[in-house]
Amino acid sequence: MKVNDAIDIIRNKLTSNRFEHTMRVYEEAVKIAKIFNGPIQQVELAAILHDYSKNDSEEDLRQAIINDDLPENLLHFNKELWHGPVAAIKVREKFNIKDNAIIDAIYYHTSARANMGMVEKIIYVADYIEPQRNFPGLDEVRELATTDLDKAVFHTLRNTIIYLMKKNEKIYPDSFYAYNYYISV
Amino acid sequence: MKVNDAIDIIRNKLTSNRFEHTMRVYEEAVKIAKIFNGPIQQVELAAILHDYSKNDSEEDLRQAIINDDLPENLLHFNKELWHGPVAAIKVREKFNIKDNAIIDAIYYHTSARANMGMVEKIIYVADYIEPQRNFPGLDEVRELATTDLDKAVFHTLRNTIIYLMKKNEKIYPDSFYAYNYYISV
Repeated sequence: MKVNDAIDIIRNKLTSNRFEHTMRVYEEAVKIAKIFNGPIQQVELAAILHDYSKNDSEEDLRQAIINDDLPENLLHFNKELWHGPVAAIKVREKFNIKDNAIIDAIYYHTSARANMGMVEKIIYVADYIEPQRNFPGLDEVRELATTDLDKAVFHTLRNTIIYLMKKNEKIYPDSFYAYNYYISV
Repeated sequence: MKVNDAIDIIRNKLTSNRFEHTMRVYEEAVKIAKIFNGPIQQVELAAILHDYSKNDSEEDLRQAIINDDLPENLLHFNKELWHGPVAAIKVREKFNIKDNAIIDAIYYHTSARANMGMVEKIIYVADYIEPQRNFPGLDEVRELATTDLDKAVFHTLRNTIIYLMKKNEKIYPDSFYAYNYYISV
């Protein structure tokens, strides 16, 4: 799939706000990929498609998790976690994208997981630091995203888990394993 | 074992500071047990013996974990987690204490775990809120410890995990599972 075709798909699928966020993640991801010699073409497609299912209804996401044999424990965690795995399956099926580096980056872009590949790490960090984001601790992650990608991943995980805990949210196990993994990478 | 015998053992085993902390946990635990109709005698012994191995050397704790078939993954986590499991084994062997409610409360008093018994919950909370402690958020936990023991456990877990994450410490899986468990109990 070509970048422009992927952009057209997303422009038709997502709200304007979400489309603009996607374009910022795309730019940010390419920037990070260039710094760390990441695979630009995979990063481009993963970034453009990462929020493919973000505007789907809660009910559609729930049905997709059940029908597409995604882990049903997702349904016991925050529904913010659902659109990544669903998008990964949909994109693979609808557009015949079989490159696991792209599919995994879409799947894990919200939860992260231990031992991620380069594309996964880039999308995960780019989504957190794109220019319109505004979280406490973001300057530090933006700095790390120019010097040490694994540390940028770790600080993104740490900030996100603390933020969710302060809101009394459950933490998805993959995120917790990723935290313990990236603390010492 | 009688309470006074347990106190004598601990007085001989721990430093003065640690002994005084133990006595405060003992008083606090009995207070909580009375509020929630907990089993006073089990709570007394568990509280008095919970830090039995707290002043053991790092090397002694490490050897005990290896020799007593405790989970070796403990060695990959903060050594503050080691003295509870070691004390549980030592106390069972040396003093022939076979009551699992007491042994489990000693074992899990630092990490906590999902689905704890009454004695475990009381010791875990009492250790966190004894009068000389001074953490942010402690007033809230002290209040909950008079009204809702499970919520007191949850807030202790939440405060502790956030505190450790801010210090860039690994989180033991039992603590994380306990957090996700007590969030919705």
